[in-house]
Amino acid sequence: MSNTNKQNVTVIGLGRMGAALAAAFLDAGHPTTVFNRTPDKAGPLVARGARHAATVAEAVTASELVVVCVLDYPAVRALLEPVADALRGRVLVNLTSGSPEQAREEAAWAAGHGIGYLDGGIMTTPPGIGDSANMILYAGGPGLLQTHRPALEVLADPVDLGADAGLASLYDAGLLGLMWSMFGGWLHSTALTGADGVSAKDFTAVVVRSLGTMAWFMTTYAEQIDAGKYPGDDATLDVHVASIAHLLHAGEKRGIDARLPELHLEMMREAIEAGHGGDSYARIIEAFRPAPR
Amino acid sequence: MSNTNKQNVTVIGLGRMGAALAAAFLDAGHPTTVFNRTPDKAGPLVARGARHAATVAEAVTASELVVVCVLDYPAVRALLEPVADALRGRVLVNLTSGSPEQAREEAAWAAGHGIGYLDGGIMTTPPGIGDSANMILYAGGPGLLQTHRPALEVLADPVDLGADAGLASLYDAGLLGLMWSMFGGWLHSTALTGADGVSAKDFTAVVVRSLGTMAWFMTTYAEQIDAGKYPGDDATLDVHVASIAHLLHAGEKRGIDARLPELHLEMMREAIEAGHGGDSYARIIEAFRPAPR
Repeated sequence: MSNTNKQNVTVIGLGRMGAALAAAFLDAGHPTTVFNRTPDKAGPLVARGARHAATVAEAVTASELVVVCVLDYPAVRALLEPVADALRGRVLVNLTSGSPEQAREEAAWAAGHGIGYLDGGIMTTPPGIGDSANMILYAGGPGLLQTHRPALEVLADPVDLGADAGLASLYDAGLLGLMWSMFGGWLHSTALTGADGVSAKDFTAVVVRSLGTMAWFMTTYAEQIDAGKYPGDDATLDVHVASIAHLLHAGEKRGIDARLPELHLEMMREAIEAGHGGDSYARIIEAFRPAPR
Repeated sequence: MSNTNKQNVTVIGLGRMGAALAAAFLDAGHPTTVFNRTPDKAGPLVARGARHAATVAEAVTASELVVVCVLDYPAVRALLEPVADALRGRVLVNLTSGSPEQAREEAAWAAGHGIGYLDGGIMTTPPGIGDSANMILYAGGPGLLQTHRPALEVLADPVDLGADAGLASLYDAGLLGLMWSMFGGWLHSTALTGADGVSAKDFTAVVVRSLGTMAWFMTTYAEQIDAGKYPGDDATLDVHVASIAHLLHAGEKRGIDARLPELHLEMMREAIEAGHGGDSYARIIEAFRPAPR
């Protein structure tokens, strides 16, 4: 299975995600070394051509590119602190979940040991690894993603967030936050339309078609946010408040839980009471921001 | 400007949306008759080639296809009841906002007078009219959308929701509900990433790239909802609860308002307490549905 044109890679941590990462490297022909604290997890990957390292030290010296995906940042440090010298001059790609602060500390630790560091946020579940329709966000050492893109792009579409290693985790949290809100709004509306006999499949097909319009609005409103001005040319908060009444009324008639739309209405009303009824929906960002000191 | 190959159309109601609809018909070369209760609004459209009808009766007899977009359903009825006989055999396309119940009543009124009826939900703001990237949802008289698609598709991409005239309004409410939730989640996350210096433009560009993955999840979960089974193969509610802790923690450190993620967490916890921690996020639809009797 080895292919001398492809870079050696090491994957440390063979939970469901780590195993999916290693499998994607193997499928793409990368000579792949794997390590897990409990070695039994390596078996299926060895059967597919992976080399199983007996120790962490052996694992990190096998490749210039070392990918780690374990439970949390303390587990990363516990594994790698003893082999810091062996990592010097190599590139550590940390795909473990954690906070921006933890990622920045890890980047500082790596810099202190002469280790290249990329922090990553995986924007899919293990079955989505190996599909370029999904993203992995990378932040950290300038130029490292560019150098190792040929290997990393076999995992998913790599997105470069720049040099601040904390940003992959922060974007990750933010995108998950958007996901829960999308799922919540979509499930609320699927329950609403379902009450009149519409299948989730039929409604969702139209939802998916509407995402291009949603993207257009968000892109337009992002410019307003960066400019700090929220002109209500297309639809004002006053208009949105009138419009959400239709949704609440339709939901009430059908016995649909109203907590989610009521919260949106509450935020709109706060903005209108503060005198912003003629502004666009982008003004609502101020409801989320810390109060000015 | 008239073009004998294009169908005559009439637009009743020249508010911002009605004027945009009439302008799109004119731009596409349709001989267009317009009417508004206060006639001064017709001026700019007449200058672009529209014919201004002096009365509603004159407006509805000018075309087989009569589009109405006014304040609300009572205003539609007040305008059209006196000309019901003149409408017989024509097709009324009602793009006025209202409830599914109002749409169904209007369809029944039209059927009682031998008038073809399509109820529509416009999924964009006036500047988006004339752009096929945006949708107008249609429900009502079977076959009418197919017959009049060449005219209606100049307004936006027409989506056929079938014969139940209430569904355009219900989908409309549902898609707006999804929109407010998307906007809320996106603004929350834009505030979060903005606290660490990320521009709204940069964050939103990654958000837009993530929508394909979101669409994939919703499409997959829609099948679960229709099947009434929520296998947590990819990510369980237990995993989501652990994951949202990262978001709440990151938000707390930055002073970001937590009402929205706290509500999502509350719904996840309710499902877990009911014994569904091993299920997928699609299980949350039951939080929105009416309690079984």
